[in-house]
Amino acid sequence: MSEKITIYDIAKKLNITAATVSRALNNNPKIKESTRELVLKTAASMNYKQNKLALALKSGRSNNIGVIVPRIDSNFFASVIRGIEEELHPNGYQVIICQTHEDPKRENENLYTLIDAQVDGILMSVSDVSNENDEAFHNVLKKNVPLVFFDRSKHIEGVSSVTINDFKGGYMATKHLIDEGCRCIAHLSGDQSLEIFKNRFLGYKQALLDNGMTFNEKYVIQSKSSLEAGKEAVEILLGYDIAPDAIFSSSDFAALGAIQELRERNISIPKEFCVGGFSNEPFTKFMELSITSVDQSPLEMGKMAARVFLEQVDKTQTIKIEKKVVLTPELHIRKSSSRTTS
Amino acid sequence: MSEKITIYDIAKKLNITAATVSRALNNNPKIKESTRELVLKTAASMNYKQNKLALALKSGRSNNIGVIVPRIDSNFFASVIRGIEEELHPNGYQVIICQTHEDPKRENENLYTLIDAQVDGILMSVSDVSNENDEAFHNVLKKNVPLVFFDRSKHIEGVSSVTINDFKGGYMATKHLIDEGCRCIAHLSGDQSLEIFKNRFLGYKQALLDNGMTFNEKYVIQSKSSLEAGKEAVEILLGYDIAPDAIFSSSDFAALGAIQELRERNISIPKEFCVGGFSNEPFTKFMELSITSVDQSPLEMGKMAARVFLEQVDKTQTIKIEKKVVLTPELHIRKSSSRTTS
Repeated sequence: MSEKITIYDIAKKLNITAATVSRALNNNPKIKESTRELVLKTAASMNYKQNKLALALKSGRSNNIGVIVPRIDSNFFASVIRGIEEELHPNGYQVIICQTHEDPKRENENLYTLIDAQVDGILMSVSDVSNENDEAFHNVLKKNVPLVFFDRSKHIEGVSSVTINDFKGGYMATKHLIDEGCRCIAHLSGDQSLEIFKNRFLGYKQALLDNGMTFNEKYVIQSKSSLEAGKEAVEILLGYDIAPDAIFSSSDFAALGAIQELRERNISIPKEFCVGGFSNEPFTKFMELSITSVDQSPLEMGKMAARVFLEQVDKTQTIKIEKKVVLTPELHIRKSSSRTTS
Repeated sequence: MSEKITIYDIAKKLNITAATVSRALNNNPKIKESTRELVLKTAASMNYKQNKLALALKSGRSNNIGVIVPRIDSNFFASVIRGIEEELHPNGYQVIICQTHEDPKRENENLYTLIDAQVDGILMSVSDVSNENDEAFHNVLKKNVPLVFFDRSKHIEGVSSVTINDFKGGYMATKHLIDEGCRCIAHLSGDQSLEIFKNRFLGYKQALLDNGMTFNEKYVIQSKSSLEAGKEAVEILLGYDIAPDAIFSSSDFAALGAIQELRERNISIPKEFCVGGFSNEPFTKFMELSITSVDQSPLEMGKMAARVFLEQVDKTQTIKIEKKVVLTPELHIRKSSSRTTS
């Protein structure tokens, strides 16, 4: 790749300072008209292209926004990003996206990559629950680049967040299974160090207790968000002396895996066994045996996160806003748990 | 947001030129040690942070790669990006992603955004088939930033591409439907100005002609890649005097919509009607009535595109490589078209 022509090259050729070149290119009135013309002519002859970024380095604005998500191949995150773009694009912002693949090291790299790309703000869903990346987060804040968390957040002073009420989502889904007549409800929980999964679990537990049912830790299986994890969980649960008759899963993918395993064993859904998931991924609706799931309004979440950013970027550095927006989830009842209507 | 401290600010404070500040910060041996120390001390006191990007502006390298796709909420593109990352990350590159939403104007903005973010290369699947963005593409090439197309490409001199043999994919899928006994096969084609969709259509047509079947334009319905488009196409096709008994769709989403509409009308699949799609989206496998589809090896496509980039970035500007890689598709036969085994 060739070296890029910089203002230093132009300055050298004309035997003037880089600052003079810069001022001439930016139409600074302190520069003599003859000098300005000479600089412009020379810059053109050297194929110098003043880019937005070089200007951003001076003005502190690039009009680019960075978004960091654990993965893009989930309808949930793709929809949040769509919401962010729908809100920011009309305001003149371009969105650039990085994914962490749930790896804290990648998250760290992404944070520095976006800062180096001179973004005006970072909207992200965290993958790292340890304090490993705290320095990277504080580096962002120190540069007065607004940071907004969505869905998966961390407690960092001065950082706003847009989340959903995961407790309520877990509660609603579990309560629905109870109402359908399920008497022993298992839970496929995600990584409990992430607040979203912890809160879904707590909602599940509270719904059991509020409705006179026993909570038993052995019916809680910590599972990844994958088909395989759902299948393995069913294998464990059906091995118990008292097997459950329902699953509330924190993940639609694990719920689908569970359903596949149950059908493999000729267990009738929803008659003998009910299943509910979380996230309302499109496939839950596509299936012939459609899957009950909790919707997280991802489009709205993205728009809200973008609006929180816009409020912050317009303020001067003397005003710090920390805003916590919590959206309400919605339960979509489908065939996988509809005993009363099927 | 606060103004960022630049070398100009340091230069002003010390009454020296920005070029001297820059040289001091970059340990240029021409700078006196005492000056270097003064600059470093002043820079530190002003909270100046020399960033990778400012260095990139000088050195021409950022180690960031830009990827542009029509949409991220498709398993196909998400998987290509995963392949790109798996190949580039071990080589020290960070990947930043932009989506066009199939809008040429967005594609144009994305190209300039990534150039401004000083990416070392752009890997992309084009959304724009007109010549509208030719200037933006040439701007990328003029800057000696390697450009590689994947899946959806355009003919631009000096630009490499990694695609699949879409003609063969269309041919295989159609031939399979003929082998299953289908006698009147309709085609849901995508936007025919895009080569991928044109070639899938040509493969379909050739398979018909090679097997003694009539090609009739009215059985080709140009459809978007959506459930609704698939439903609407079925509505049109079933209104014909001679209705088709099979559909080969260029899109899995349209294939799913077609299946939903056929079931709505109590048409038995695959007994009375066979359906095949394209892209091998995960849901095609998840469905109880799993959908036959053409796999495009997206992971391999992403890795290959990354390798083509790596070959180019290592060359000096005097060597231009234009490489065309064509992958072979694979047909996954499933329930939606398996008459002989069901």
